[in-house]
Amino acid sequence: MFSRLCHLCTIVLLSLSAVIAARYPSFGTIQTTKSAGVLNAVINNTFSPINLFDQHVMADLGNLIEELQANDTDVRVVVFSSGNKDFFFPHIDSNSLLPGYESPLPKFDPGNPNLSFPVALVWNITQLPQATIAVIEGRVRGIGNEFIMSCDMRFASKSPSVEFAQIETSLGRTTGAGGAMYLAHEIGRGRTFEYVLSSKNADAVTAAQIGWINQAFDTSTELHDYVQKLAARIALFPAQGIIATKKGINAVSRPPIDVLIQLAQNAYAELTQTPIGRDLTNKWLRVTNNQSLSAVELNYGDGEDIIELLP
Amino acid sequence: MFSRLCHLCTIVLLSLSAVIAARYPSFGTIQTTKSAGVLNAVINNTFSPINLFDQHVMADLGNLIEELQANDTDVRVVVFSSGNKDFFFPHIDSNSLLPGYESPLPKFDPGNPNLSFPVALVWNITQLPQATIAVIEGRVRGIGNEFIMSCDMRFASKSPSVEFAQIETSLGRTTGAGGAMYLAHEIGRGRTFEYVLSSKNADAVTAAQIGWINQAFDTSTELHDYVQKLAARIALFPAQGIIATKKGINAVSRPPIDVLIQLAQNAYAELTQTPIGRDLTNKWLRVTNNQSLSAVELNYGDGEDIIELLP
Amino acid sequence: MFSRLCHLCTIVLLSLSAVIAARYPSFGTIQTTKSAGVLNAVINNTFSPINLFDQHVMADLGNLIEELQANDTDVRVVVFSSGNKDFFFPHIDSNSLLPGYESPLPKFDPGNPNLSFPVALVWNITQLPQATIAVIEGRVRGIGNEFIMSCDMRFASKSPSVEFAQIETSLGRTTGAGGAMYLAHEIGRGRTFEYVLSSKNADAVTAAQIGWINQAFDTSTELHDYVQKLAARIALFPAQGIIATKKGINAVSRPPIDVLIQLAQNAYAELTQTPIGRDLTNKWLRVTNNQSLSAVELNYGDGEDIIELLP
Repeated sequence: MFSRLCHLCTIVLLSLSAVIAARYPSFGTIQTTKSAGVLNAVINNTFSPINLFDQHVMADLGNLIEELQANDTDVRVVVFSSGNKDFFFPHIDSNSLLPGYESPLPKFDPGNPNLSFPVALVWNITQLPQATIAVIEGRVRGIGNEFIMSCDMRFASKSPSVEFAQIETSLGRTTGAGGAMYLAHEIGRGRTFEYVLSSKNADAVTAAQIGWINQAFDTSTELHDYVQKLAARIALFPAQGIIATKKGINAVSRPPIDVLIQLAQNAYAELTQTPIGRDLTNKWLRVTNNQSLSAVELNYGDGEDIIELLP
Repeated sequence: MFSRLCHLCTIVLLSLSAVIAARYPSFGTIQTTKSAGVLNAVINNTFSPINLFDQHVMADLGNLIEELQANDTDVRVVVFSSGNKDFFFPHIDSNSLLPGYESPLPKFDPGNPNLSFPVALVWNITQLPQATIAVIEGRVRGIGNEFIMSCDMRFASKSPSVEFAQIETSLGRTTGAGGAMYLAHEIGRGRTFEYVLSSKNADAVTAAQIGWINQAFDTSTELHDYVQKLAARIALFPAQGIIATKKGINAVSRPPIDVLIQLAQNAYAELTQTPIGRDLTNKWLRVTNNQSLSAVELNYGDGEDIIELLP
Repeated sequence: MFSRLCHLCTIVLLSLSAVIAARYPSFGTIQTTKSAGVLNAVINNTFSPINLFDQHVMADLGNLIEELQANDTDVRVVVFSSGNKDFFFPHIDSNSLLPGYESPLPKFDPGNPNLSFPVALVWNITQLPQATIAVIEGRVRGIGNEFIMSCDMRFASKSPSVEFAQIETSLGRTTGAGGAMYLAHEIGRGRTFEYVLSSKNADAVTAAQIGWINQAFDTSTELHDYVQKLAARIALFPAQGIIATKKGINAVSRPPIDVLIQLAQNAYAELTQTPIGRDLTNKWLRVTNNQSLSAVELNYGDGEDIIELLP
């Protein structure tokens, strides 16, 4: 029923964008619908067959986040889902790591001069005045996982296309937006080391068992029904309590920003530009055929065979 | 066997109160028995059908805590349980939030001038020289949950009357004694956001699965047997090791006191006095018939129907 | 297959010790084999029937750790296991707590003047440039558990000989190398209090359920197969990413060193030298027949009967 409703009322970022002029170019990769205090945001990067977290998505997310920051009463819950059922977000666009790459976006976030643009995006999600929920169908890797960890809650379907991974160590990097640090809080130190150092996939059932996500559902319908009911319930409550409660929980469970800048963001930036890091970026772009819909993107993190292609 | 023993040897706060004169008025809401280093404290607020965490309970808890602070060898374990099998503690007395409310208790704890009286009570439980165990039968909500989170350990029966919730967000507040912060350490960031922002109930089985409580037991007898054995075992050991171990664990797992004061206690105080907060306090007192034994108190946090009465 | 290979290629600390001269006397309690970036280190204290964590093991660990600190590319994963299938590590040598005890080792680590030698050993494991994995067969108690908690990952077999405990509270002490603090991050505050204050055993299945270890396996073969595959996979990746990722995870999940020094190491040192602490050390040496292979060492932490022998 939910999916039927969805087809009827899809509106491209209209209700909110009336309020604030978009600061970044708009690419239409996020479709939003709003009803009774809940904003559903479906992310579908039509420029990429694998829903790449690239400049198009980042620009649209930047605009959406700025609108949400300014709207602390009308919208009380934001639900992020993916329009591509094979990929929620596979990872960042590795082209952005190549020398001479030019983006239409600023390198650093104007509101957070110490935070690079993608790191600022996910950091700012943690402090939105709304409750935020990630509804996961499809693969979640790299900054895709950092995106969902920055949301307040995470729910997934048990579809085999759902896989969670931080793949940076396999590429000679570390998790640049603090993904490993958020995981350490959710799944403990030992399991974080296991998944992040090995860059392997967790399926939805395992992820729910160890606390990576809140819950896994047998079907897409059950997943969406549960989340829409939860969102509708939270949206009944005054914004003032939601905002204050988020601040309190963040203060004791979010990585400290200076630690995140130094040991995630800056370490990532440095490692991607070492000879080893540059070599692996080039190899990655080659074996993925520039991040096209391929066996590598579909199955990376599953078996040793694919991993061994790389380093 | 334990329950039979209990009926035989109930003593109203005598063994300990010989040591120290009670600082606060005594209301007899806590019955204590002591044996072989274990103090069993049964809380039964005879002024309230729902075992309200009100001035009577707070005064008696204040006296008990002061006695325990001074007794660091004779008693090595304290077991808190409820004499009301439907309610462990439902929440604070909302009348205390009304303008002009007068309590026989000081507003701030004399030993902790930055801590309001109820916040000081639960904070001081965390640093008692004794091991502390909450044995949960009946509903635990609001400051009731903050009370059990401040104990070292939590065990519950699987009775349907056992429900855990932080309900403050639904009333436009935040958890004033740090309940959400303790939960973030126990059940992770994502599940804390889910339960606290939605103000919904967790049953005992779920609570044990996600780490909210240590363990859930099929029957009341199994629950009490397990806890009494555990308490008796800990009470065999010297106080010096219990005290030092508690300090070490607290140092890495308890919310920092300045964060708790600012983002829990003070945020709560502020939000309860906004127009929205005052309106919801009045509505709460109305729909609960001044916190009487009612469907709202029994089932709050279960279904959307009751929630919708409110805001 | 793994165990057969192991018998063929055992080399006593040769490959690495060519690089650096050993700083401490060598006792041959650690046998190492290296292959494709993975160092397998089997600990077998032939001076003790219970694989005591004594001066012999500590000297050999000290040498191994110094070699690993200097080798940040050739070895990328270290796997620690026990040559004694009944005991991984039972605890520290209690003789070292007696007045006048003399060790061939320095009292404080030369590289960490604030850390006693055993505390420095396990602390330094956390910051090795290699991924570290503990493969657990046999009992793990006291500093043995602190050793495995200092490793990045922990895997065990479900053999009845596998038991995990921090037994210090039962001896009037606290966990001197931060074991309780690491546990609080992995299994939560409530369960840490339960296990550490009661000094009781957790079996492998329970330990995996609550997050004390990563996973428990039905057989020794499955355990070793899983770990060797995991180690081989991580060893494919460049050291630079492993090192950076470990730094990030450590920064948010390891007890702060000043807290560990004050509330673990120094509290332990103080409590072992009180009259109660000295009395319990003497009793311990007596009931264990100086830590020989006995019912106490095999079953300590299981039943109240043995505990009651002691205090």
